[in-house]
Amino acid sequence: MTTSTGANPYQITVGSVTRQLRLVPVGQMGFVPLIEFIGDSELTKAAAQALVPLIPEGTEALLTVVTNALPLTHELSDLSGLPYQVARKKRRTYMQNPLIQEMPGLTLGVSETLWLDGPHAERLSGKKVVIVQDVIATGSMAMALARLTERAGGTVHGYLAAFKQGENTLPMQYLQELPKWVQS
Amino acid sequence: MTTSTGANPYQITVGSVTRQLRLVPVGQMGFVPLIEFIGDSELTKAAAQALVPLIPEGTEALLTVVTNALPLTHELSDLSGLPYQVARKKRRTYMQNPLIQEMPGLTLGVSETLWLDGPHAERLSGKKVVIVQDVIATGSMAMALARLTERAGGTVHGYLAAFKQGENTLPMQYLQELPKWVQS
Repeated sequence: MTTSTGANPYQITVGSVTRQLRLVPVGQMGFVPLIEFIGDSELTKAAAQALVPLIPEGTEALLTVVTNALPLTHELSDLSGLPYQVARKKRRTYMQNPLIQEMPGLTLGVSETLWLDGPHAERLSGKKVVIVQDVIATGSMAMALARLTERAGGTVHGYLAAFKQGENTLPMQYLQELPKWVQS
Repeated sequence: MTTSTGANPYQITVGSVTRQLRLVPVGQMGFVPLIEFIGDSELTKAAAQALVPLIPEGTEALLTVVTNALPLTHELSDLSGLPYQVARKKRRTYMQNPLIQEMPGLTLGVSETLWLDGPHAERLSGKKVVIVQDVIATGSMAMALARLTERAGGTVHGYLAAFKQGENTLPMQYLQELPKWVQS
């Protein structure tokens, strides 16, 4: 495999934790570096510790979406003392009056649906909310979460992600930029 | 609403954290108390702290399944220093040679499928593995995770859950028993 840059773009270091990222083949176009927080409590904790100082002053709640950012957001909540809520990608039988938010998918005509349980949405009402993700790429998921926040009666107070991977115009805070594509 | 016992069975206390559980209506049969670790880093951390001493001696790895037990298992991993792996309920595009495990569903003829990514399965090989869940009820999910462990070349070293909710014959360690049904 050849790489598009001289340095090794598939290695990341967060705090004292260094990981070689797995490269996921995408068609014949190349590879995408994969961040795995799930199953890696060391990397997750290091990223959360590095992200805490980037939480905007005045933040009152965090909002994320299943699944990859879930341990990270839990850890951020634990370290910062801020409560967090989680949007789901499937309706759960126990949900009461959930907010339902469509988001545009990667494939034309296919969209994904987010579900925020009613009692959880209530906890965002009147609050300054920061959207949290493991990786923000195009920003379409972040914007769907922002819309959920507003519909719940909250105010979007910022966007926080461990990594930025690709182009978007969101005023986001992040630790590092990752290459979106690695040519094979 | 009337309750089946004099005490309030919908309140739990773990360490210094007390929560009123939401009661989820189930048909006309009554209610099921719902444990929500997702979105509650305080309860999650308290449960993990209480569970660490229950991890059997000699344990080398933890295995759980998305989604509810994910923050709990991350926290257990962080507190104990043990690595953890996570089975998914959908195939992810990045998976390489995943182990695929069917589990019997709640409805006759409907089964759920678990996916354990190949590189993650390798990390269980030769290891003494403890199955972790937020709640163990019938034990069918725990048994599917045990089967995944064995197929990955690991040995099941125990079953750990924050709560037991219902009858099963697993040799499980848990913090508290929850009522399975609350009559309306």
